[in-house]
Amino acid sequence: MNDAAIIIIGNEILSGRTLDQNANFIAKRCTKIGLKISEIHVIPDIKKIIKDIVRKTSAKYKYVFVTGGIGPTHDDITAESIASAFRSKLILHKKAKSLLKEYYKKSDLELNANRMKMAHIPKGSMLIYNPVSAAPGFKIKNVWVMAGVPKIMQAMFTYYVEPKLSKKGKIFFEEIKIYKAEGEIAHILTTIQNKFPEIEIGSYPFMLPPKYGTNIVFKGNNKALIKKVIKQTQNIFKEKKIIFDA
Amino acid sequence: MNDAAIIIIGNEILSGRTLDQNANFIAKRCTKIGLKISEIHVIPDIKKIIKDIVRKTSAKYKYVFVTGGIGPTHDDITAESIASAFRSKLILHKKAKSLLKEYYKKSDLELNANRMKMAHIPKGSMLIYNPVSAAPGFKIKNVWVMAGVPKIMQAMFTYYVEPKLSKKGKIFFEEIKIYKAEGEIAHILTTIQNKFPEIEIGSYPFMLPPKYGTNIVFKGNNKALIKKVIKQTQNIFKEKKIIFDA
Repeated sequence: MNDAAIIIIGNEILSGRTLDQNANFIAKRCTKIGLKISEIHVIPDIKKIIKDIVRKTSAKYKYVFVTGGIGPTHDDITAESIASAFRSKLILHKKAKSLLKEYYKKSDLELNANRMKMAHIPKGSMLIYNPVSAAPGFKIKNVWVMAGVPKIMQAMFTYYVEPKLSKKGKIFFEEIKIYKAEGEIAHILTTIQNKFPEIEIGSYPFMLPPKYGTNIVFKGNNKALIKKVIKQTQNIFKEKKIIFDA
Repeated sequence: MNDAAIIIIGNEILSGRTLDQNANFIAKRCTKIGLKISEIHVIPDIKKIIKDIVRKTSAKYKYVFVTGGIGPTHDDITAESIASAFRSKLILHKKAKSLLKEYYKKSDLELNANRMKMAHIPKGSMLIYNPVSAAPGFKIKNVWVMAGVPKIMQAMFTYYVEPKLSKKGKIFFEEIKIYKAEGEIAHILTTIQNKFPEIEIGSYPFMLPPKYGTNIVFKGNNKALIKKVIKQTQNIFKEKKIIFDA
């Protein structure tokens, strides 16, 4: 019962248009923390199929990791399918709504009805943080539901899911948002990462038309050290006149 | 019922050590010929699990494609598991044995008991051709079992499986074996491929210590044209003193 299953939802994987790399990412990270993946399933965006397999694997395994189908379009039916698997229903989640509001406020984009769909979460869920594009994943019972876009999924798993599975003690993360492309600051991050190997530094490009930039996430066991590393990073940005939000 | 399922067998995929690319290859080729993949499952090298899922998908779908677990080691249990799924048993297959004999005769390697395991095939199967390392896959009922090594699986699917699924009329293939590395003849193959786009030319490196070389496979609808293309290719090889077996 210490095992886990992975469910990849998406017609684009089944048609071969997209090579799934999410299962491999999750499997690798799980292996590292001593969690065994026993099954991986790729299934289509069909409510009954999602519902059945989520129910079955949730009963059989300690953890179930799901990716895909939580975006703003009509074929994003993962949230409603999983709600129905647990006889729950979708509700407008206040915190999710405010995350989206805050995110779109900084852009030219409108938080329209399509996008508001992403704030509808199965009742009884906890949110999973998304440092790339705000729209959260969620956890209901032992099922962790993440985005299908690899960069977002990886951030969700690394900063939110994995720290909760790991037995290495409490793990903290903090982020800063800068208004520069990733490629222009990569060398700065490399220098800082090499100086502080205990802190895991990740970078996630974002698009907030007309603005764009990079979210930088710092993760580790030592909260004080994270603060210190962020301070040093910000000092470099100030020196180079790179604009950032703490 | 015109749909298909893919089953990927292998602990190395579940642990994340290996990124599976076989499902994507099969899915892409099936989509091209109008065959829909409805499910993909990655499962461990465990007899009961293999047996159950093969039985279930074989009853549900028109075709089931399986990769992995047909090599010479103790954890290669796909053949015996699938035999047992269909209440069949493993037999020493004469043609498979002679293919292996012929292959190892050309090398310093011995066709020992481990390797002879690869000639044991479920009774009632048809063989699936392997132009890379001779050890065949097999088809039993509607289940097509191929190697896990991508290059071998791709050759098996392309030259043997796909022509039997496709509705484009009979497809032929022929091969020649040359004793030169792939990288030294790639430009020759490119020239010929460009000259004859109707014929699909594939190259598959092989190692037969102390020898090594490349199998070149020619595939198409027109048998006479294949012969002609092979003739031209051989003429170029003769000119460049490249040794080949027809």
